[in-house]
Amino acid sequence: MQSNIFTIITKPTLLLDEDQAIKNINFMVSKSKEQGKLFRPHFKTHQSAEIGSWFRKTGVKAITVSSVSMAKYFASHGWKDITIAFPVNWREINEINTLADHNHLELLVESIETAKFLQNNLRLLTEVWVKIDMGAHRAGLNWQNKDEITKLVDVVLHCDKLILRGFLTHDGRTYHAKSPSEIKDLYKDSLKHLNKVCHWFEERRKSAFSISVGDTPGCWLSDDLGNVDEIRPGNFIFFDVWQFQLGVCNSEEIAVAVACPVVASHVERLEVVIYGGAIHLSKEFIIKEGNPIYGMVAFPEGQKWGIPEKSCYVSSLSQEHGIVKMNQRAFNKVQVGDLLCILPVHSCLTADALGHYLTLDGRRIEMMKKEY
Amino acid sequence: MQSNIFTIITKPTLLLDEDQAIKNINFMVSKSKEQGKLFRPHFKTHQSAEIGSWFRKTGVKAITVSSVSMAKYFASHGWKDITIAFPVNWREINEINTLADHNHLELLVESIETAKFLQNNLRLLTEVWVKIDMGAHRAGLNWQNKDEITKLVDVVLHCDKLILRGFLTHDGRTYHAKSPSEIKDLYKDSLKHLNKVCHWFEERRKSAFSISVGDTPGCWLSDDLGNVDEIRPGNFIFFDVWQFQLGVCNSEEIAVAVACPVVASHVERLEVVIYGGAIHLSKEFIIKEGNPIYGMVAFPEGQKWGIPEKSCYVSSLSQEHGIVKMNQRAFNKVQVGDLLCILPVHSCLTADALGHYLTLDGRRIEMMKKEY
Repeated sequence: MQSNIFTIITKPTLLLDEDQAIKNINFMVSKSKEQGKLFRPHFKTHQSAEIGSWFRKTGVKAITVSSVSMAKYFASHGWKDITIAFPVNWREINEINTLADHNHLELLVESIETAKFLQNNLRLLTEVWVKIDMGAHRAGLNWQNKDEITKLVDVVLHCDKLILRGFLTHDGRTYHAKSPSEIKDLYKDSLKHLNKVCHWFEERRKSAFSISVGDTPGCWLSDDLGNVDEIRPGNFIFFDVWQFQLGVCNSEEIAVAVACPVVASHVERLEVVIYGGAIHLSKEFIIKEGNPIYGMVAFPEGQKWGIPEKSCYVSSLSQEHGIVKMNQRAFNKVQVGDLLCILPVHSCLTADALGHYLTLDGRRIEMMKKEY
Repeated sequence: MQSNIFTIITKPTLLLDEDQAIKNINFMVSKSKEQGKLFRPHFKTHQSAEIGSWFRKTGVKAITVSSVSMAKYFASHGWKDITIAFPVNWREINEINTLADHNHLELLVESIETAKFLQNNLRLLTEVWVKIDMGAHRAGLNWQNKDEITKLVDVVLHCDKLILRGFLTHDGRTYHAKSPSEIKDLYKDSLKHLNKVCHWFEERRKSAFSISVGDTPGCWLSDDLGNVDEIRPGNFIFFDVWQFQLGVCNSEEIAVAVACPVVASHVERLEVVIYGGAIHLSKEFIIKEGNPIYGMVAFPEGQKWGIPEKSCYVSSLSQEHGIVKMNQRAFNKVQVGDLLCILPVHSCLTADALGHYLTLDGRRIEMMKKEY
């Protein structure tokens, strides 16, 4: 038997195709450089100092994170310019102040309460973005709500602890688009509205505001990044089944897979049971032809995983078990004791669950340890 | 302000109501003792040596786990009689043999291949159960499939490394029952079929086989545990929204909740944004009136969380954000910077994600560390 990583794996293990991840990084780096945009990648996807260093080698100096814990981790690994792209958690104000002592932090505000809280509790002058909601209704002020945005901008402009950088969004609508062209249209739409918001206030300050956008689908697919100052995509480094289904990436561009031991098989249902469940893959799913799909399925092939098998998918997950629906040809190829490689539906959640990476040449890459 | 745990929490934190968990334990211990059944609780729910010790104090000596890693962890904390209720993972045979050197292990087989693998690779004589599927189609041989079961039993009886304990099931159908009475009926149904399976083979061996059942809904609700030898429920120690919806527990019997900081609020939608997402709660959901529900919502009240708020629920989760739908009265009570207590949909997954507990008197309880 050929000696490779597949011979040493005994438990669900997150495989990372380093070459592909670096290709994905290089694509976004080149595009943003060519178009003169600040590339501030979101590091919540990989949560790894080593993988962060791959970005640094391309000249990236500014990053995005989704928690104060993550900001602390990356600051401790030499990242000095960090946007915490999450509504400010008042309960972590001490940690935020400590971080701000030695780093350039950018924070998000979406309410007058939080602006005043920061004014009263920040020790140092800090840059903030007003979070704008393009319609996904997760966080932020709706771009159409001029009154609310105006009230907040007025307060922020009067807070001498806060410098208003501009307007920031993560347009979650692209994650539910029907086609790549709809994603590009949503991206343009988002930019048009954000520029309008900027114009409302530019006269008031007599200087321009910046615009920051974040979603992988829009930033990856749009040839022209348009009138933005910075982009903050994160997922593109690994991609996943969700992005594949959206038409953002092809299956070869997915840079992670979970190697899972086959522990049982049921010929009458053309199903195999894998050691690999909700605590490894996460319960994120897509719906295809009416069925929930928790992962696509590929066989180990040489030192890598192969092309995903047609009509094979993870059909359900319990805590540690996964059920994989196979076609007859694929079923015939698999035996108890083998490994299957599962392409995750949402790579950010899968990486978070598994806690480290194994590269295809067998090198372990660490991630941030959870503080709790 | 009253000094309590809610003043010190800064991030999503798994709260454990120790008194309630012990009440839940005592109920199952008493029922199994009174009815003369071996109580072999599933420890995958809590994954904690300290919580395990609460069971030990009631006289529990035998446990169930769902992975070899978990068996190693609990063996290292003095548990000597362990069933690994998961199809044997051939790739961990070395770890299994090492464990078997110093502990009484019981394993599951559901195929001739695995029986033969064990015969060829186990170092010591080991007890096994044939896994039976009552219709949930996760793992095991269908109880109606007498031919398949007979072939497997014949092989196992001829393997001199294996002792056949009997027939084991986890009847997952109860998790999708429409009412408590349906759960009790399914439990009886399951027992009837398992006893039938036993009778097929008892003449052959001239000695009885044991029966082991596992699901919390059936074991908790059935006043008469019936003709079984051992029960292996796990979830009952904490319960969760799923069990509440099934009618297995009431909301006061749920012994865990995740305290999550409120980071934004949107009066126009009566929604608040919490720091608490898929990586904390898991993406398990129930459907109620057509809406996915990722958690029920309670306010901190004194040293505990209160009764869950009517018509308030976690309506969506991304990696770190949760969106909570509120009614007007509840919305008026909550401010940015407050905590909400989220009752998880699937407590096993939430505990696994959060990695430790905080008791209501502020004591930290550790869990098994993930090996990966």
